[in-house]
Amino acid sequence: MPKFIFSNIIGSFVFSESHKLIDGLLFKDIGQHKNKTEYEEKLRQKHRDITAPEDKDLYNILLFFKNKEYFSHFHSKNLDITRKSVRESVNNDLLIIQTINSIDEIGKNTNLLVKRLREWYSLYNPEISNKVADHENFVSIITRKSKKQLLEELNVNESDSLGAELGDKDVSAILLLAAQLNNLYKLKKHYEDYLKQLEKETCPNFMEVAGATIAAKLISHAGSLRRLVEMPSSTIQILGAEKALFRHMRNKKRNLPPKHGIIHEHQLIQKSKEEMHGKAARALADKLSIAVKIDYFKGKFIGDKLKKGLMEKFKIQY
Amino acid sequence: MPKFIFSNIIGSFVFSESHKLIDGLLFKDIGQHKNKTEYEEKLRQKHRDITAPEDKDLYNILLFFKNKEYFSHFHSKNLDITRKSVRESVNNDLLIIQTINSIDEIGKNTNLLVKRLREWYSLYNPEISNKVADHENFVSIITRKSKKQLLEELNVNESDSLGAELGDKDVSAILLLAAQLNNLYKLKKHYEDYLKQLEKETCPNFMEVAGATIAAKLISHAGSLRRLVEMPSSTIQILGAEKALFRHMRNKKRNLPPKHGIIHEHQLIQKSKEEMHGKAARALADKLSIAVKIDYFKGKFIGDKLKKGLMEKFKIQY
Repeated sequence: MPKFIFSNIIGSFVFSESHKLIDGLLFKDIGQHKNKTEYEEKLRQKHRDITAPEDKDLYNILLFFKNKEYFSHFHSKNLDITRKSVRESVNNDLLIIQTINSIDEIGKNTNLLVKRLREWYSLYNPEISNKVADHENFVSIITRKSKKQLLEELNVNESDSLGAELGDKDVSAILLLAAQLNNLYKLKKHYEDYLKQLEKETCPNFMEVAGATIAAKLISHAGSLRRLVEMPSSTIQILGAEKALFRHMRNKKRNLPPKHGIIHEHQLIQKSKEEMHGKAARALADKLSIAVKIDYFKGKFIGDKLKKGLMEKFKIQY
Repeated sequence: MPKFIFSNIIGSFVFSESHKLIDGLLFKDIGQHKNKTEYEEKLRQKHRDITAPEDKDLYNILLFFKNKEYFSHFHSKNLDITRKSVRESVNNDLLIIQTINSIDEIGKNTNLLVKRLREWYSLYNPEISNKVADHENFVSIITRKSKKQLLEELNVNESDSLGAELGDKDVSAILLLAAQLNNLYKLKKHYEDYLKQLEKETCPNFMEVAGATIAAKLISHAGSLRRLVEMPSSTIQILGAEKALFRHMRNKKRNLPPKHGIIHEHQLIQKSKEEMHGKAARALADKLSIAVKIDYFKGKFIGDKLKKGLMEKFKIQY
């Protein structure tokens, strides 16, 4: 008389020909479910003449699990599986997206705060603020050097300065903001390095061709590397220019289709002549589409070759 | 024969009756100009019969300074005076305005960054992010305690958590943002204390009645303490509600006039009933107008009495 063996997420079971439960064991956790063949093997050794159920037997066996006694088992095991898949859905793509978004946010914030700082510091020492145009440089300089030192370097007599003499606590209040900004700039740089590291692991070809920032922005915009893989290169080309695209689709005569979206910032396009932008964008999107597919399916590293091809074609170094 | 003595920003001079220069000395800097009586006294001792010129003599004396030789003196002394007055225009009002604006800006920035942080951290440990609603508390907790500790406190088994297991460098990237946010919160608190200190020196009465933040916002909106002094209390009442005011002026039937502007945030109004808002705003603006005038003209401290009067009238503690 044949017996049937059957496994599901709660355990492995042996049924008689008349679909009665003869033997079985319940899994303790998802790990055991994963290694179910091992447990099935044990049961096979114990019982002879054991086979997998045919369709008609399967129906009756499945009916058996409608017994309320198993409901709580199914419930807890299902929860475990869901939890596990939620946990495992966090991959480098998501980290890349979070990182590039944080970099963007920090960039915006430092820009706003540094304007405040300049206004505030200008009460004290307007000469420097006018002299040093670069924000990051400005912040670093005023945290490192005193007003006296700075004025000396500019060859401005202290009595000729238009800045007010402020009390120590007033100056230190201003410099605290500068110190904080310095830290934000450092953090941004750290995240840029971290982003490169993440991309080196996840999408080295894509990063090589696009550059770390644009690669991250494209992944963030698409939602994941996988969705980027599924896109035709023409979609990658205009990713981020959706507004212009829909404007074009509403009124084709008045609005030309967009030539590029996020990839507009890429050196290959920035450095090429206006009339070549469309051509460069198309070629770049093409290579990006190839690179991202290689990365997703864990292919070899040919990013340098793709990049070289582009540089030679458009005679542009990047 | 009478001689004339005449001083201007470049020096003190003695003229003969026929308006010829007899004696004189040039000031070296603005400080000497300020003590010009001292220098005039020296000349008076040297020359007898010295008087201040009458109108008709003054005309000829002023003509004398049209000589080109004095132009550079006038030019440099004028520059000095302008520089001095620019320098001295920086007062506590301006520092208060800069400080409250920085507090606002930091507040906005931390709010944006903390949302990013929550999203990012939730990949790793979503349970805590859901549990702790207060942003500042959330940031402080996750910088102080490990995921393991936090889950234990929530009685969540680590294997039941929906958070992913991230590598050390991934976790530390997230925690760097948290540390930065912690610093920004600290800076904001420091500025709030500094603001109180500034206001205690500049406008103790005004601060007592309005509270440090609202006082600073009113000063910032008006532009200076002086301009606030010049405003009627009804203007102070609706300062910051200009949009609503002009909406009302354009269409009086459809739009009621605003009851309050910046002072809307004040406890006296927040804690009183809806129908009393207008009354409370009027009374508060009244007392603010008194307080700011006392402060500007360096009167005594009666802020506590003004505040007590308001609290008793509306039976509200603040």
